[in-house]
Amino acid sequence: MKSSPRITLLAGGVGGAKAALGLYLSEHKANLSVIGNIADDEEFHGLWVSPDIDTLTYTLAGRINQQQGWGLENETHQVLDGLNQLGSDTWMFLGDQDFATHIYRTEQRKKGIRPSAIAQDIAWKNGVDIPLLLPTDDVMQTRVLTNKGSLSFQEYFVREQCKVEITAIAIEGAEQATATAEALEAIKNSDLIIIAPSNPVVSIGAILAVSEIRRALEETSATRVAISPFIGGKTVKGPADQMMQAIGMDSSPASVAELYQGCLDAMVIDHEDAESEASLLNSGLEVFITNTLMKTDDEKTQLMQVCVGFAEEVAQQKRLSTAAQLTQEAC
Amino acid sequence: MKSSPRITLLAGGVGGAKAALGLYLSEHKANLSVIGNIADDEEFHGLWVSPDIDTLTYTLAGRINQQQGWGLENETHQVLDGLNQLGSDTWMFLGDQDFATHIYRTEQRKKGIRPSAIAQDIAWKNGVDIPLLLPTDDVMQTRVLTNKGSLSFQEYFVREQCKVEITAIAIEGAEQATATAEALEAIKNSDLIIIAPSNPVVSIGAILAVSEIRRALEETSATRVAISPFIGGKTVKGPADQMMQAIGMDSSPASVAELYQGCLDAMVIDHEDAESEASLLNSGLEVFITNTLMKTDDEKTQLMQVCVGFAEEVAQQKRLSTAAQLTQEAC
Repeated sequence: MKSSPRITLLAGGVGGAKAALGLYLSEHKANLSVIGNIADDEEFHGLWVSPDIDTLTYTLAGRINQQQGWGLENETHQVLDGLNQLGSDTWMFLGDQDFATHIYRTEQRKKGIRPSAIAQDIAWKNGVDIPLLLPTDDVMQTRVLTNKGSLSFQEYFVREQCKVEITAIAIEGAEQATATAEALEAIKNSDLIIIAPSNPVVSIGAILAVSEIRRALEETSATRVAISPFIGGKTVKGPADQMMQAIGMDSSPASVAELYQGCLDAMVIDHEDAESEASLLNSGLEVFITNTLMKTDDEKTQLMQVCVGFAEEVAQQKRLSTAAQLTQEAC
Repeated sequence: MKSSPRITLLAGGVGGAKAALGLYLSEHKANLSVIGNIADDEEFHGLWVSPDIDTLTYTLAGRINQQQGWGLENETHQVLDGLNQLGSDTWMFLGDQDFATHIYRTEQRKKGIRPSAIAQDIAWKNGVDIPLLLPTDDVMQTRVLTNKGSLSFQEYFVREQCKVEITAIAIEGAEQATATAEALEAIKNSDLIIIAPSNPVVSIGAILAVSEIRRALEETSATRVAISPFIGGKTVKGPADQMMQAIGMDSSPASVAELYQGCLDAMVIDHEDAESEASLLNSGLEVFITNTLMKTDDEKTQLMQVCVGFAEEVAQQKRLSTAAQLTQEAC
């Protein structure tokens, strides 16, 4: 019997959570770790909000508001109404149960508990029984430089609804950030690394911006597969295409591969981007073409199973070619 | 036409808020200031909760849960449910709209804004358009020493439901606390000081424990009247009688007068305590006997009007006796 591969998934928010759920609902759950993005964390009303991590937790817990893709289902908004009455800025639409998470997280941080331990604790208490890891316990934050000034990601995405012109994107604090031992261990000890179809610039890009994480991905013996977040040159949800443009790249699998350079063995791309296959193969990557849109839970599980199957094939090829090389050298 | 007297009310929680509302709904509102109690403030879930001040604000704003006497009406408890799921201790029953107040207060404190400015700001934003003052901007806290250890007031009152044996009561931080300029000014510039029928040990007692406040009350030229919080030797609500016993006193108007010694010219007591009149008169206080139970808003206004009328009479007598004394001395 073939043993299930140890998998580490790198995931951002909504798209990342879909991929995480696909694996979580599959036979691969037992050997799954997820590394999430914290660069769009931000304080609201003095509370530490961690949107991507919460989206992962709530999605895996089956508590996500499916229509929105973020936040909790069946939410009320009494706290936000109260804060609004007190004159606070309430454009960040936080529900009451969600506030409990932020209050709890903030209290735990105040006690000096590591952010990654808090994230894992909140996940567990939501019934999510896999390692949910942070790339770092340090603070790092995406800054979007625009014609309206320097914005946090939430200001750009939620408050301004992406209707501003981006001049540059920076992940502040990433260079100085130390990776968590848990994330490094997961990468080192995995058979497969899967990069979810998340925003390559500010979600996956922010995880890779932690230099120890990037180095671990470059050096791991695991097979590394990315699922392109673009379908026909467009993003499914969120501003990934606008952000690619802002950094002078198009929304093609090739551009994604360029951003992940040195951290990839293979890519899964959509049928609509089949034309990219040649250039990806040329740059030494294996390619699998399939339908990458994940609407239902079944589609999520299927895509992730396909992705794992493909990655295992790539791994097998790698082993064979290494063996062939060794044989050749021995002759 | 007689001008309305400038009144400062010293008030604790539920009983204090009733007295405050009685004045607030009367013709005396225009010249009314209220000094509240902060010694039962406490952090819950990392948020700064100020139960007595909130009870005053919510009562005057007409938003209080009338059945409870504290908290907001029409509350939901989604946040508390969420915190409970995350494993937090949730015996302090905080509603969702109430959480907004605590989140806002905590955020403002973190910004370095004075607690008294925050309390006034929250009151204003609730539509309460009188000065709501704090005795101090420093932190002070009632500690109830019991057979279950040293408890905060909320731990004693809410968590333990007063079902513990008290060995001592201390107001920590009171001695070092500096009074706010606003509270001192209000006391100095008032014609009447009214002490609400609140807990004499931990509500009024905590305000008087700020030595500058006590001295200002001793030195003010205002006429000072206390309404006894006891009716027939019993408290209307809360643990005042148990706390009086703990400090070796009975629940009589005379004991209250003893605690307020030097800060009083007169007392309003209930018919059921009429027997106390003689001893109060003996100790040099003027006494007014009436029905002190305040159930309806009309009863609140009536009692406070009676109290103001009585205080003005006492003031008039004081003026006459001073004049007589001066005449006598001049002869």
